[in-house]
Amino acid sequence: MSRKLCLGVIQMAVDEQKANALKKAVSNIDYLSTKGANVVVLPEMFNCPYETLRFPDYAETAGGTSYQTMAEAAKRNGIYIIAGSMPEREGTKIYNTSFIFGPDGNCLGRHRKMHLFDIDIQNGQYFMESETLTPGNDVTVVDTEFGKIGVALCYDVRFPELARLMTEQGAKLLIYPAAFNMTTGPMHWELLLRSRAVDQQVFTVGCAPARQYDSSYISYGNSMIVSPWGDIMGRLNDEEGYLLGEIDFEEVAHVRTQLPVITQLRKDLYELKLLKESL
Amino acid sequence: MSRKLCLGVIQMAVDEQKANALKKAVSNIDYLSTKGANVVVLPEMFNCPYETLRFPDYAETAGGTSYQTMAEAAKRNGIYIIAGSMPEREGTKIYNTSFIFGPDGNCLGRHRKMHLFDIDIQNGQYFMESETLTPGNDVTVVDTEFGKIGVALCYDVRFPELARLMTEQGAKLLIYPAAFNMTTGPMHWELLLRSRAVDQQVFTVGCAPARQYDSSYISYGNSMIVSPWGDIMGRLNDEEGYLLGEIDFEEVAHVRTQLPVITQLRKDLYELKLLKESL
Repeated sequence: MSRKLCLGVIQMAVDEQKANALKKAVSNIDYLSTKGANVVVLPEMFNCPYETLRFPDYAETAGGTSYQTMAEAAKRNGIYIIAGSMPEREGTKIYNTSFIFGPDGNCLGRHRKMHLFDIDIQNGQYFMESETLTPGNDVTVVDTEFGKIGVALCYDVRFPELARLMTEQGAKLLIYPAAFNMTTGPMHWELLLRSRAVDQQVFTVGCAPARQYDSSYISYGNSMIVSPWGDIMGRLNDEEGYLLGEIDFEEVAHVRTQLPVITQLRKDLYELKLLKESL
Repeated sequence: MSRKLCLGVIQMAVDEQKANALKKAVSNIDYLSTKGANVVVLPEMFNCPYETLRFPDYAETAGGTSYQTMAEAAKRNGIYIIAGSMPEREGTKIYNTSFIFGPDGNCLGRHRKMHLFDIDIQNGQYFMESETLTPGNDVTVVDTEFGKIGVALCYDVRFPELARLMTEQGAKLLIYPAAFNMTTGPMHWELLLRSRAVDQQVFTVGCAPARQYDSSYISYGNSMIVSPWGDIMGRLNDEEGYLLGEIDFEEVAHVRTQLPVITQLRKDLYELKLLKESL
């Protein structure tokens, strides 16, 4: 559990040709693996334009081409892959789903976005994921040889309850594949990633698509890795690129000893309860 | 409920002579009242040095001199006073307590710090409030003609649960009299006030003592008012001074319509429960 994790974060532009998007993702994963990454993260909807009405066209079932491509990349490189997210079809429903693969290529878990992104900001961003998507109902924490990792998607980061629930299940690193926009990005992206880190005293990661001004939805980019103190350990700007960060899970215990927020929660006075877990 | 509130925030230095501290507080309150303030906030431990071992010496019971002085100032000016905090004695116990007075001079409520400040940061701040203080057990929200105001103290701001509970009780403005230090202040003060505002979509206020380098505990200062978008509406530096800010409670509804985080909470999946309320 004490080995340090080398985290690779890929900020790549959206390619409308799914085959190209997959090829680019794999080539980045392979490259970061050669650089020493043990865990690689892709952006939200890395194989699909971020447009509600196109999610159905791009959706695949678990086990489909995109899923298999990621599983194979994980196995070939012997690393963990947090496969950003993709539209996932199950029956008549479509979810915004992050599949998580282990070094043997097996799927360790999946997070279906729990809080759908339905906003309408005056003179700013409008988006209604619920037009085509169904929300997931599960808190997602996977176990790795380095320690536990929580995964949630984009808008999920606005909900401190979900971060707390992941932390209470042992996650010491919260990974948010995401696609904030040019309204909410400059306002809140850094703030949310830093505050989730400081509140929970864990590492947090936001992994976004690169900015493309000719898209209908313009991603803010600015993928970043944040320490349990809330310090930004690495940050990209708007362009394609990657981050490599060393995550030492021991640092979580170190921070919590000095500033014992987690043990000082007044659980005698209030309690956050998980009401159901569907899986 | 729709009238705008003019909020006065007093950042004053600690005066070890309690009589002088009270005099200074009253003179500032009177002044901000003439400037139009409807609600005035004082810093944490405004009538006492921030040193655990001195809290017992400075402690008073509810109804004591400091309490009466604040009640009279509220009544004389016809305004609300969030009387920062003071060491409050009840029986053998001492609390870090914020008394809240209405325009008629009556005490509308009190907040006893719920999360005591016990930290020991390597090469940084050490402080153990629990050496002499007892924590309070109540969420504090008071009703005013402008709307509901939540009050909590300093370290309480680190706990998103308390902010959520105040918000669920209807608070649209969360006021934190506080005294962050030169370790945690630069690291987390702005981050925490902004993130509580953005998570809850409410106004937040931090009111701190001015910085005094010759104190055993050096306050970071930087009192500030934050909007429900997370924007800093007003901010002081390290010196004595005041802020006046216009708080329009309608803005809370406006933000929540555009970015409906509060209604998008997945209360079907998780629930934050208040286990007891002692008062």
